[in-house]
Amino acid sequence: MQLKGIYCPVITPFVDTKPANDKLEENLEKLSVTGLKGFVLLGSSGETPFLSHDEKIELIKTARNQVSGDKLLIVGTGLESTPATIEFTKQVADFGADYALVLTPNYYKPQMIEANFKEHYTSVADSSPVPIILYNVPSFTGIDIPAAVVNELSEHPNIIGIKDSTSSLAKIAQIITESAKNFSIFIGNAALYFSGLVTGAEGAVLALCNIAPQVCVEIYKLFKKEDFERAREQYFRIFPLAQRILQPYGIPAIKTAMDMLGYYGGPPRKPLLPLSDKIISEIQSYLKRAELL
Amino acid sequence: MQLKGIYCPVITPFVDTKPANDKLEENLEKLSVTGLKGFVLLGSSGETPFLSHDEKIELIKTARNQVSGDKLLIVGTGLESTPATIEFTKQVADFGADYALVLTPNYYKPQMIEANFKEHYTSVADSSPVPIILYNVPSFTGIDIPAAVVNELSEHPNIIGIKDSTSSLAKIAQIITESAKNFSIFIGNAALYFSGLVTGAEGAVLALCNIAPQVCVEIYKLFKKEDFERAREQYFRIFPLAQRILQPYGIPAIKTAMDMLGYYGGPPRKPLLPLSDKIISEIQSYLKRAELL
Amino acid sequence: MQLKGIYCPVITPFVDTKPANDKLEENLEKLSVTGLKGFVLLGSSGETPFLSHDEKIELIKTARNQVSGDKLLIVGTGLESTPATIEFTKQVADFGADYALVLTPNYYKPQMIEANFKEHYTSVADSSPVPIILYNVPSFTGIDIPAAVVNELSEHPNIIGIKDSTSSLAKIAQIITESAKNFSIFIGNAALYFSGLVTGAEGAVLALCNIAPQVCVEIYKLFKKEDFERAREQYFRIFPLAQRILQPYGIPAIKTAMDMLGYYGGPPRKPLLPLSDKIISEIQSYLKRAELL
Amino acid sequence: MQLKGIYCPVITPFVDTKPANDKLEENLEKLSVTGLKGFVLLGSSGETPFLSHDEKIELIKTARNQVSGDKLLIVGTGLESTPATIEFTKQVADFGADYALVLTPNYYKPQMIEANFKEHYTSVADSSPVPIILYNVPSFTGIDIPAAVVNELSEHPNIIGIKDSTSSLAKIAQIITESAKNFSIFIGNAALYFSGLVTGAEGAVLALCNIAPQVCVEIYKLFKKEDFERAREQYFRIFPLAQRILQPYGIPAIKTAMDMLGYYGGPPRKPLLPLSDKIISEIQSYLKRAELL
Repeated sequence: MQLKGIYCPVITPFVDTKPANDKLEENLEKLSVTGLKGFVLLGSSGETPFLSHDEKIELIKTARNQVSGDKLLIVGTGLESTPATIEFTKQVADFGADYALVLTPNYYKPQMIEANFKEHYTSVADSSPVPIILYNVPSFTGIDIPAAVVNELSEHPNIIGIKDSTSSLAKIAQIITESAKNFSIFIGNAALYFSGLVTGAEGAVLALCNIAPQVCVEIYKLFKKEDFERAREQYFRIFPLAQRILQPYGIPAIKTAMDMLGYYGGPPRKPLLPLSDKIISEIQSYLKRAELL
Repeated sequence: MQLKGIYCPVITPFVDTKPANDKLEENLEKLSVTGLKGFVLLGSSGETPFLSHDEKIELIKTARNQVSGDKLLIVGTGLESTPATIEFTKQVADFGADYALVLTPNYYKPQMIEANFKEHYTSVADSSPVPIILYNVPSFTGIDIPAAVVNELSEHPNIIGIKDSTSSLAKIAQIITESAKNFSIFIGNAALYFSGLVTGAEGAVLALCNIAPQVCVEIYKLFKKEDFERAREQYFRIFPLAQRILQPYGIPAIKTAMDMLGYYGGPPRKPLLPLSDKIISEIQSYLKRAELL
Repeated sequence: MQLKGIYCPVITPFVDTKPANDKLEENLEKLSVTGLKGFVLLGSSGETPFLSHDEKIELIKTARNQVSGDKLLIVGTGLESTPATIEFTKQVADFGADYALVLTPNYYKPQMIEANFKEHYTSVADSSPVPIILYNVPSFTGIDIPAAVVNELSEHPNIIGIKDSTSSLAKIAQIITESAKNFSIFIGNAALYFSGLVTGAEGAVLALCNIAPQVCVEIYKLFKKEDFERAREQYFRIFPLAQRILQPYGIPAIKTAMDMLGYYGGPPRKPLLPLSDKIISEIQSYLKRAELL
Repeated sequence: MQLKGIYCPVITPFVDTKPANDKLEENLEKLSVTGLKGFVLLGSSGETPFLSHDEKIELIKTARNQVSGDKLLIVGTGLESTPATIEFTKQVADFGADYALVLTPNYYKPQMIEANFKEHYTSVADSSPVPIILYNVPSFTGIDIPAAVVNELSEHPNIIGIKDSTSSLAKIAQIITESAKNFSIFIGNAALYFSGLVTGAEGAVLALCNIAPQVCVEIYKLFKKEDFERAREQYFRIFPLAQRILQPYGIPAIKTAMDMLGYYGGPPRKPLLPLSDKIISEIQSYLKRAELL
């Protein structure tokens, strides 16, 4: 049974600088009717590096309660230290996460070589009660786990996939062609969503799903029906939004767009800052251009 | 009439360190029966930066003589200086080139900004008797002409396309969605060949065509017939060769493989060096893996 | 009163994977007699990203108890979130830190622009009971706070300096020439130690001080006496060690060398790994070459 | 006898888009009374990649005629191809060049590895009638010859130094400490001029010498007299000009400044473009700030 489909890495809604469980519930409820296969909690879109351990636990409880039926709940558990990652992954499994998404450790960049990635991920996977998904996002971490290491780790029975937000389709192709059978590649970079699927990825985890879940799901469905022409059309519909808005302006832009679209976005936590009026009206115009507003 | 199809950027065969016209003729003859739409002479695969002006002229005469019928002859004319590029482009047109492929000037990198690219390409296109194709190859030039500049230049009536060897599919998508109607995008990076076509590129100019012209053409034909499954299969067949052999070892590897496959490859010009036995046997094994040998 | 001199960013000694307060005390005691002006606790050399909040508090108590007299105690307090950094900085001040060293937030790289750095550091400095030192270390964070932002922040009365581990001496020169009077630049990259001092830096915070505190201090003293010739000689003595050992192998190499030199180094925390025998003997040979062993 | 001192890499003056020998003579004459040790013709500042072979030969004749007495004439001869570089180096020697400055071949970047650099430079040095100086300028070539390769090449009896325009002082230090005795390091990056000298470089080749030859020479003299304080003062005098004007705006800025200062600058060749009025007045203000105007 291979993991597939489109997942939304949900934002963390703040009210008065505190995580607001009710807003998370609202967002999850609205997002649940869009055809998404599940949710990623505590991913990069969740402002996870800004959250305390207690805040994280509260969010997991809330999400687990809300995400039910056939929807899957994937929770980000990667920390810099291997023992801390192991401990948190176990906790998260206790709270009912279906999968753990484990970010590459990245602070000591020159020392994060093949052996360290292998040791880290093998240790986490060996001790995790739930299956592990590798998480690579070079634009945030400044580090890119090599395809060869991913492919070796893909043989581990408890490492079932990767969310790779690389901008290199060549790397995606290398993982697709050389990783273990049943290992799932999820595209994490909206610019490579369509081409990634066509090349052989099993799905995607896109911040864009917070704003345009229906279109993201529609592209996947069209692709599955082999209607590439219309899948590409829908991809081009959202591509400028991903490229010109989400990539440069990040979470504040996602939250602003969500507010415009009937979700709760709210303010980001500092040092992320609310956007200028100029950028807000840019967002509006790109949402209109994509026929989302 | 939009330019389309698959083109082979031919190597320059050397015998005793001199360009060998007869070997070029032989290679062109063999390549001509493979379904290629035409040839690029004096591209990066041609060791052009190593050639004197006189050597270039001789090669053009030879190629023009050999390439006939419905095959197109595209000739690389880009030099660092704008007036020198203009002059050489005119000469090349006089010798019968169908199109000129104009490399981005790249030495004065910090000064090669939007205005310089526009001025350069507009001047060349204004004065060229034949249509111009932009040529962007960041892995060699260390410079990447921005998509926005390409899209603006695409409006020029005498600039009809780009060969972009970028590794960024996001950039390709941005050109596809925002360039002038009838502007042609040719993929120059084999790793992005299949995904580039599916995203909307009009064709490709691949060094790999020197070695595997039939497979390159077959992928294009399958894609045109919307048989994406088999197109992807053929792409995966040659992908490892492109990624593991051509990318790291470059022209010496192309020439070595050509020698193995019945073309004339011969030695590269220095400072490029013949390959070690170890790499030569790696090439052999990748050719076998791709069922080319 | 401008902050000056050479500071040691101490390692965190682990015994059975737990921080060992007694070993920290021993190391601090031995390092205290070497002419260092003070210590940095919870810097990059301290494996801080691997430590829990409780572990950090214990280490601060221990260090504050041990570091006395005219030695200064600087404590790293930078976290990704602004409010968390403010809170931790206040705590650290309560425990007696003399200065707080505040790492650049770095996860959301594309969004960490001028406004975010200014807001973050101004907020922290406004609310901190102790003076703030900026901390920039691009090789770990993947982000480089621009000189212009540093220079603007240098005007804040509670921001008294920067530890900049940049590899760009041009950036150091730009801060030296354009920052506020009395703003202190500390070199954080051993390769630029001597040239940084000569260009006008007020001191240094070097991981190398864990291994070669006397030499680091001696260079500073010779520089202060304007004996540049001998200062440079001593710099060249330790340069290969910094360049060939500490840069590639990081904390595991520092700890291994400390073990060889009579300090307690011990094992790193995972995903950092113990070094191979080959690298260990390389370290030994570089220590001998530097006449430290 | 080790090569030392400060050299000016002269610009190529154009009148009506053609090289103007009389203007070159004028500039050389004026520059000759400033204490410079010699000149570099056909360096990066000379717009060499824009010049035809015939234009280069004319410029060499003119310069050789003008540069006499104890002034040295160094001529840039590096081309992409090894045989072409050898041939041109011999020619240049015939025309009386004292030294040849040989740029790193750089087009086929992934293939320009250790073996290629060694083969190229050894071949050129073996056959050159005049001593060779290596020329590394990563900001233009996109390639950085490794320190270890430089140090190995420094053992060749006919390779007597390097002009390294790297921005890494660590690399400079590595060459200083590990290259052959009597091998000369010339700083090519004005930002590292002072610190490079203090670290042990034998001199400099700075585009800035076209504008501020006296200050550049003065810094060297003060350094030689061990008056580091005033040497640094003079360095800080010109540093902003180098950093804020020459680095971003390049040759057009050098030429504009020369026109302001009584030399002949004139227009650059395309694709370099004349500067906007805004930048021209910036240049004026930086020249005033440096007390050159």
